[in-house]
Amino acid sequence: MSPHPLDPLSPEEITLAGRLLKKAFPGDHIVFRVVTLQEPPKAHMIPFLDAEHTGKPSISSPKRTAFIQFYRGTAADFREVELELHTGIIRREKKLEGKHSYLDTTESQATEKACLNSPEVKEAIRMLELPDDAVVCVEPWTYGTDGMNDMAERIIMCYFYMRLGGHGDANFYAYPLDICVEMSGLEVKRVLSLPMGEHDRTGEVRDIGVKPFDRKKIHREENEYHPDLQTERRTTTMPYQVVQPKGPSFHTSGNLLTWEKWRMRVGFNYREGLTLHDVTYDGRSVFYRLSLSEMFVPFGDSRAPYPRKAAFDLGSNLAGLNSNNLQLGCDCLGHIKYFDGYFHTSAGDPVVLPNVVCCHEVDDGILWKHTNYRTQNAVVTRSRMLVLQTIITVSNYEYIFAFQFTQDAAINYEVRATGIVSTAPIDIGQKVPYGTVVAPGVMAPYHQHLFSLRIDPAIDGHKNSLMVEESHAMPINDPSIHNPFGVGYTTANEVVESETPLDLDINKARVFKIINENVKNPISGGPVGYKLVPHPSQMVLSHPSSYHSKRSEFGEHAVWVTRHHDHERYSAGDHTMQSLGGEGIASWIRSRSSPLGVRDEDIVIWHTFGTTHNPRVEDWPIMPVDKMTVSLKPVNFFWRNPALDVPISSQGENKSVLVKDVNAGDDVAVKTACCKL
Amino acid sequence: MSPHPLDPLSPEEITLAGRLLKKAFPGDHIVFRVVTLQEPPKAHMIPFLDAEHTGKPSISSPKRTAFIQFYRGTAADFREVELELHTGIIRREKKLEGKHSYLDTTESQATEKACLNSPEVKEAIRMLELPDDAVVCVEPWTYGTDGMNDMAERIIMCYFYMRLGGHGDANFYAYPLDICVEMSGLEVKRVLSLPMGEHDRTGEVRDIGVKPFDRKKIHREENEYHPDLQTERRTTTMPYQVVQPKGPSFHTSGNLLTWEKWRMRVGFNYREGLTLHDVTYDGRSVFYRLSLSEMFVPFGDSRAPYPRKAAFDLGSNLAGLNSNNLQLGCDCLGHIKYFDGYFHTSAGDPVVLPNVVCCHEVDDGILWKHTNYRTQNAVVTRSRMLVLQTIITVSNYEYIFAFQFTQDAAINYEVRATGIVSTAPIDIGQKVPYGTVVAPGVMAPYHQHLFSLRIDPAIDGHKNSLMVEESHAMPINDPSIHNPFGVGYTTANEVVESETPLDLDINKARVFKIINENVKNPISGGPVGYKLVPHPSQMVLSHPSSYHSKRSEFGEHAVWVTRHHDHERYSAGDHTMQSLGGEGIASWIRSRSSPLGVRDEDIVIWHTFGTTHNPRVEDWPIMPVDKMTVSLKPVNFFWRNPALDVPISSQGENKSVLVKDVNAGDDVAVKTACCKL
Repeated sequence: MSPHPLDPLSPEEITLAGRLLKKAFPGDHIVFRVVTLQEPPKAHMIPFLDAEHTGKPSISSPKRTAFIQFYRGTAADFREVELELHTGIIRREKKLEGKHSYLDTTESQATEKACLNSPEVKEAIRMLELPDDAVVCVEPWTYGTDGMNDMAERIIMCYFYMRLGGHGDANFYAYPLDICVEMSGLEVKRVLSLPMGEHDRTGEVRDIGVKPFDRKKIHREENEYHPDLQTERRTTTMPYQVVQPKGPSFHTSGNLLTWEKWRMRVGFNYREGLTLHDVTYDGRSVFYRLSLSEMFVPFGDSRAPYPRKAAFDLGSNLAGLNSNNLQLGCDCLGHIKYFDGYFHTSAGDPVVLPNVVCCHEVDDGILWKHTNYRTQNAVVTRSRMLVLQTIITVSNYEYIFAFQFTQDAAINYEVRATGIVSTAPIDIGQKVPYGTVVAPGVMAPYHQHLFSLRIDPAIDGHKNSLMVEESHAMPINDPSIHNPFGVGYTTANEVVESETPLDLDINKARVFKIINENVKNPISGGPVGYKLVPHPSQMVLSHPSSYHSKRSEFGEHAVWVTRHHDHERYSAGDHTMQSLGGEGIASWIRSRSSPLGVRDEDIVIWHTFGTTHNPRVEDWPIMPVDKMTVSLKPVNFFWRNPALDVPISSQGENKSVLVKDVNAGDDVAVKTACCKL
Repeated sequence: MSPHPLDPLSPEEITLAGRLLKKAFPGDHIVFRVVTLQEPPKAHMIPFLDAEHTGKPSISSPKRTAFIQFYRGTAADFREVELELHTGIIRREKKLEGKHSYLDTTESQATEKACLNSPEVKEAIRMLELPDDAVVCVEPWTYGTDGMNDMAERIIMCYFYMRLGGHGDANFYAYPLDICVEMSGLEVKRVLSLPMGEHDRTGEVRDIGVKPFDRKKIHREENEYHPDLQTERRTTTMPYQVVQPKGPSFHTSGNLLTWEKWRMRVGFNYREGLTLHDVTYDGRSVFYRLSLSEMFVPFGDSRAPYPRKAAFDLGSNLAGLNSNNLQLGCDCLGHIKYFDGYFHTSAGDPVVLPNVVCCHEVDDGILWKHTNYRTQNAVVTRSRMLVLQTIITVSNYEYIFAFQFTQDAAINYEVRATGIVSTAPIDIGQKVPYGTVVAPGVMAPYHQHLFSLRIDPAIDGHKNSLMVEESHAMPINDPSIHNPFGVGYTTANEVVESETPLDLDINKARVFKIINENVKNPISGGPVGYKLVPHPSQMVLSHPSSYHSKRSEFGEHAVWVTRHHDHERYSAGDHTMQSLGGEGIASWIRSRSSPLGVRDEDIVIWHTFGTTHNPRVEDWPIMPVDKMTVSLKPVNFFWRNPALDVPISSQGENKSVLVKDVNAGDDVAVKTACCKL
């Protein structure tokens, strides 16, 4: 069976792509960095999907094409190509001069090893007078541009921790050491001592000298999260299981997923991780593509070298490649379907990334209810949700990303932040204004998480508009306006005409509606649409002149609307590793020769949201999830409640159990009537 | 066993209270309006609870006292008393002159009957030329003051609908009729015709005349939500059950509820419904009392008589009394404990309100996770939540209120709005700027839901403060500030000194921390606290000079802090029925002879949140839930993650099931390893 044009490359296709590329560069040593599906141009996909949706005779499928990034010989010759798999023809080739590829485990491990083997580093560690059982762990970080280095050179920052007590899963982030190393390639450039108080400034390790405190004294069980290292564990939480006697309500066939009235294709790639394509509800087109475009984690500590801590966890660290292998019984309950992803070795051989996406259902409480007080009859439905979840680990931290589909035709995008907060050393007794002391000697710096959700809508077709709606009090002293009691309010609507960023305004109940002006709702008389229910968030705090701001253009505003372009997918630019700015969403808009109209056009909506995370002590040693949710909800898209036909809740199917009071004498009546149905 | 001082009055106590009151007013005809627990003064409760918490010899329990409101003879003599149950002594008595008691079912039904029996109303209905099978339904509404009537007179507004098709649960809100009636007592004051378009103005029914359209044509199945009247019902949703093989993790003994490390007393009264008292975590005091104080639903339609639609669903309609009888298998899954409430007849006899609160657990996905990429070992815990849920029906509409307790020591307050939107008639083809046409001839007016959550904190004691924290970029051109890269940011804190309203500011990541300045966190060095995570919402839209605004003082600002007073519990005032304003939270603050300090004092925090609900067609004929969530989260209250000891997730306990691909040839490996534990 031939793959669907939106299916990720199969292992066989990855092998083929590698072979074809090597053939195209005979004699060269090829280091494969990326081999992934080059998604077909939307212009080709639209007629294909239209035919597919309407069951018309299939038109010819867009060609399977691989997008490949590779080093030709060395990293100095970094290139990308689009390679047609059935012909081997290279359709596009580009030298990526001055660009850096992502940081992966291979490079991290080699960097760590080289760093630890360097005599200067060994000497610096010796001077720290660590306990005998300390195992030093080096954490390589992508270099967050601060303007102090020649940007062409690839720099990796190494931060140091120690593991105590001999257990491999001891929490080394609890013991940050007060040195760091700047690496270039596998060479140590500089060994620096880290600031240990508000007024310390970093410098060469020998300049400042090391003032070790007795690190043995700070070894404490409270720093550990691994169950082997925890003696206390509550035993009061009774088991809780989800039973689905007739199996799940979803169906999959390859990457095609159907559930209730939803239908979509599940995609996955090395960078964005989970992507969703061609999302329809009850046969009507809703979204062409949904994905996390980028995320940025800038730190607020102003002391060098910390301004270099500024992570693009998609562009530089790769959400797809860092996806967890999800396990039965751990990451979800009930009936679970897993999707695998595929990557490849540097030689171009395919590698399975097992279980990177899990698909399951959850009960989300009541969906709708009404009791007719005249008859006392209640009717209740429960809300079932379909969840597509993926979890990434980026060194110390984890993100849980979930698309949730509801029976009332909404889509939620939920992000949970967890894992271990990034830590820095601090002298006992010191405080800093840009961080929280979470354990003795351990400071968790303030930081932001800014996510950029890319929403490529197809609301009843591909020509869409963005309408901004606000709720305004009616004036009271305008004789032309009938508002005699001062209580009237109405909505003001404006359709956005050309590409622009937009801000939220809670005080005006500003709503962003993605509408199709060509399709009217026969009941309301207005256009059909979906609204974005944003997650209200503080935008990026760094100064506009800073590299943080220049590099994370999406972080400046909460909502952006652009005209669709196939190659505009990453809102901080295609290459975030050591980027200098000027290549994200604001730059795209600025670069147009004249303003591009976005009314009744193929548009993309981008939502920036996140959290200003000033750590609590409660976030230590492992952080309970911090949840953020964005929703896309139909607004006059349907002719009535799309969940009107959801099964009525009943005890016959739900099989709940009555709990009696612990007091023996308690006379709880047996209650079995269920909403009188 | 003697009741706990915070236990609601038992049926026996209600009987006793009634008997004692009648004895105190011999010969009078007493119409009981309210018989409920007069909660003991906080000044008496604090030493009692301190002794209880520390296991010291119990000090004498505060006296059981009933709070009673009643008509002495007629509603013209409306009074309230505090009556000591063990002595029969009336401790306080007050004549409630000019105040109106709530609207209940008895009065509603009598009003409806009187209205329908009136010759003028009969004539008005005749003129509407309704279909033969039409059953006219009258909906009595509390009178939302608009300044047009003598306020001393009790007015009930009657809106008219018709039920078609003969089924008792047919949705009559789908057929709003174009008349309404102003009732005084059981007398018809005026019959009015309703405006049918934007420029119509209401008047005497005969003045404007009735222009009936053929109502038979608008009878449609799409208007029905009751399963008997719905032919379409999806069959794709497979059963989903929650199984708890060892029972629930919570324990109750009377109104005392313990779950995980939480301990609290469940309260319930006729007005607020569910209340929570003396909430502790792991033996540490957190909140003295949590409750919904009030809610206000003003409508945005400026045409008379609609400015009278402005419901105080607690003060005038009573959340407690309108609480649903929750049923096994309908409103929750799993193991469910129900709590009953108690009310009384107008004669003072106790009445059980069965199952008004349900208590159950839910799984809320992942609580924390980390994968050590060096060992590839993942550790996951799942988040179990305890939910205390109550649902109220206020004529057409329902609210689902839930306190959710988490294992990481947070409390969420979730509100779901569902039911049937309020409707008004509209001529076919007409539109109005303050409403959505949701079905032919049916307009759902714009409205707001504004909730006032009352948070009476006891963070490690009763002397608390409110700290407002913001995240600010560090300046870049101040030589005294070290911010060479322009990326630094810090927090600015201010402790509120005296009673005041406050607003949200998302752009500054403004956080409201309830702190105890007397208790320092030994790790962070700062005060212990809980933060309010608000639900950002538009505040009340009506003009400050309007009765809507004057009556709903809490609706003007998102956060309020006041000094605790036992009698300040309802933020729109004790008497909202036909209120004129000047008796809510702003008035309390204004009324102090000098500003009251709220720093290191016994304080109360009030959060106003809600939604500007401009209905969608999708909200018809029954509305899928619209969710709002407010959270209270520990912030440097604990010395580490309080959920660190939660059981590690494992397949052995969770018993999930692997779903294979529908394609026969699919070779899904059997995956059983669970996080390697």
